Amino acid sequence: MARKLVGACVFAQSGGPTAVINASAAGVFLTALKNKCITHVYAASHGVVGLLNDELFDINLEDIEELEKLKYTPASAMGSSRHKLKDFGIDATEYERILDTFKKHNIRYLFFNGGNDSMDTCNKISKYMKSEGYECRIIGIPKTIDNDLAITDHCPGYGSAAKYIATTIRELDLDVRVYDIPTVTIAEIMGRNAGWLTAASALAYDHKPDLIYMPEVPFSIADFLKDVERIVEKKKTCFIAVSEGIKTKDGEYVAETKQAKDNFGHSQLGGVGKYLENVVRHEFGYKCRSFEFSLMQRCAGHIASKTDIEEAYNAGKKAVLYALNGETDKMIVLVRSKDENGDYKCEYGLEGLSSTANVEKKFPEEWIDVKNVGIKDEFLEYAKPLITGEPKIPYENSFPRYAQLKKVRAK
Amino acid sequence: MARKLVGACVFAQSGGPTAVINASAAGVFLTALKNKCITHVYAASHGVVGLLNDELFDINLEDIEELEKLKYTPASAMGSSRHKLKDFGIDATEYERILDTFKKHNIRYLFFNGGNDSMDTCNKISKYMKSEGYECRIIGIPKTIDNDLAITDHCPGYGSAAKYIATTIRELDLDVRVYDIPTVTIAEIMGRNAGWLTAASALAYDHKPDLIYMPEVPFSIADFLKDVERIVEKKKTCFIAVSEGIKTKDGEYVAETKQAKDNFGHSQLGGVGKYLENVVRHEFGYKCRSFEFSLMQRCAGHIASKTDIEEAYNAGKKAVLYALNGETDKMIVLVRSKDENGDYKCEYGLEGLSSTANVEKKFPEEWIDVKNVGIKDEFLEYAKPLITGEPKIPYENSFPRYAQLKKVRAK
Repeated sequence: MARKLVGACVFAQSGGPTAVINASAAGVFLTALKNKCITHVYAASHGVVGLLNDELFDINLEDIEELEKLKYTPASAMGSSRHKLKDFGIDATEYERILDTFKKHNIRYLFFNGGNDSMDTCNKISKYMKSEGYECRIIGIPKTIDNDLAITDHCPGYGSAAKYIATTIRELDLDVRVYDIPTVTIAEIMGRNAGWLTAASALAYDHKPDLIYMPEVPFSIADFLKDVERIVEKKKTCFIAVSEGIKTKDGEYVAETKQAKDNFGHSQLGGVGKYLENVVRHEFGYKCRSFEFSLMQRCAGHIASKTDIEEAYNAGKKAVLYALNGETDKMIVLVRSKDENGDYKCEYGLEGLSSTANVEKKFPEEWIDVKNVGIKDEFLEYAKPLITGEPKIPYENSFPRYAQLKKVRAK
Repeated sequence: MARKLVGACVFAQSGGPTAVINASAAGVFLTALKNKCITHVYAASHGVVGLLNDELFDINLEDIEELEKLKYTPASAMGSSRHKLKDFGIDATEYERILDTFKKHNIRYLFFNGGNDSMDTCNKISKYMKSEGYECRIIGIPKTIDNDLAITDHCPGYGSAAKYIATTIRELDLDVRVYDIPTVTIAEIMGRNAGWLTAASALAYDHKPDLIYMPEVPFSIADFLKDVERIVEKKKTCFIAVSEGIKTKDGEYVAETKQAKDNFGHSQLGGVGKYLENVVRHEFGYKCRSFEFSLMQRCAGHIASKTDIEEAYNAGKKAVLYALNGETDKMIVLVRSKDENGDYKCEYGLEGLSSTANVEKKFPEEWIDVKNVGIKDEFLEYAKPLITGEPKIPYENSFPRYAQLKKVRAK
């Protein structure tokens, strides 16, 4: 039995939002509010910036039913930040300010929800608090649509982004094939270094794109043109998913090559999709259109995955329970397991923050079908459970009814 | 009582797809299949092209439960076309081919689902058949996300596109405000000449964009920059909806002005959103992002409006019933009415094809709040009923289960 630690807790959101990051917030808040060791529940305004400036929201003043609605509310309800802390060996000023905030509110628990950079921040704060002899327990909660956090089987946020992408790709596939003329359509998908999100387009199964270009495979314009020509000759319509992060064999982002820039003129206007659109139009004269899934792929709460919402919630809940149980300086990891029927089941483990911080999980190259510019079934088996299920989202006046919080500043 | 006309019917889809165009197909098919005067039900492959080439699908061979699923299936399931017929006074060759197809299958009913251009096609075919003494009844069924068809209060397809736009804008509004730094986000929305779709962004109510630029109001870069600066100073985050069709006071598309082209380099790469993104970044240095709703706004079946689906279905059904009742050379119009409780209700009237063909319905200028770069409540009252309700879409393997048709070619 761990030593009882009595004090307040604070929850912080960091990095880019996801459709389910607030589900983790709900998991933390609703679990912490019920526990007697936790004397008060706070949330930092704009992540670490709120900790620095003592800008906290008083979660005890919120209505429980609105906190419940956070499960279905996309984007970071508490505000986010990309602020990076220096090493405290070099400059401890900011850490001192965080410690002041902690002392002022008797904060003994920190739950930090974010991606790679955030786990690093979390790790640094944890080490500083230890060095100052301030007793507190710090648990990281993983979050990222990019699915690139190490050790954890997958990340909360990825399943919903993947579901948005696959659902939209299915609908687009119906749309782009309605005319009986040669057309090329290019959907540009996020992921600067890893193709997890672009691969999700293959989850559209019978409506998957004809060609899927991943950042893990060196990209050649000549091969691309041959691929497009082959598909248009066979099917008249060519539907393409491309990662924003595709690179040449020299490792240069395709959208940033000299060739692309000359085409773009002086200023870099679009991403790689717009560039390829122009190449196709110039080369073949086909009707060609490109677009980006842009921010939509990370905030489409209305089409979120039920599994992802549940796992994000549980990750938040488990963070609180582990901390109460004496754990600290760790990140929640999602562990793929099987239930008694052999079906997918998620379990929640812990890993040291130092082993997860700043390590990027790549997309497995053996899951890429390089020859056919596609994705292999191994990925579909991996990703299918993550996009499973549709939550019963409450609707009001024709729209999902998202949480409306009071967000009262703590004194 | 109209004279009984016994023969086959053919249904054709034309122009750009919508999320609910297939609901009108379902209305036509399911009503026609039940009626004894209609001896066979066909659908033209790729609209008028199918009529020209005698490429018809035999709808009698389809499963009724799959035809029912057309209600929820986006994009033109039968294929579409933008082919325009010449006046038959100038060249009747194509009309003769259509007449051959009609005679071969004893087609006596044509239901033509499309927008402005399609009603013109419909009207020409109708006049030709009359001039040749071939008895048939021709009814146009309105369809367009642009909502720019004359006479009808609104168009099937618009409500669902508007619901997609407003839902997405609400989610984006949560996303774009998570960081505590000056950011500008620009969503580019379809509509070359009329701002109906761009105005739908105002349906996001408390999450509507800060600035809404309509094609009906002459656009000035200088005013735009002042607007953006004002909003960023007040709220830090500026969220903008802009119509692809905004024009300068000289009537030139903003994306096609010399200034824009110089910025873009030689080739025109993006739309107006990308151009404005660059202007903002260059002028203020703010973090700025733009994207287009592109094809997603016309095919997002998963977030379609229940009202829109029902009205599209009824428009198809009424077309068949009116034709059986002796009507021809007319288009179905949606008439705004009230039920016994004073609530919105839609009725289905008829108007001559000649009065609807090629007439564009503009967005009422008195609904635009020019001073505040926004939309007035009169529009919200008009549009609110059209986006009302969420259909119970059947899901299978994590995705909406769309219709799977056999599409057997008629002999």
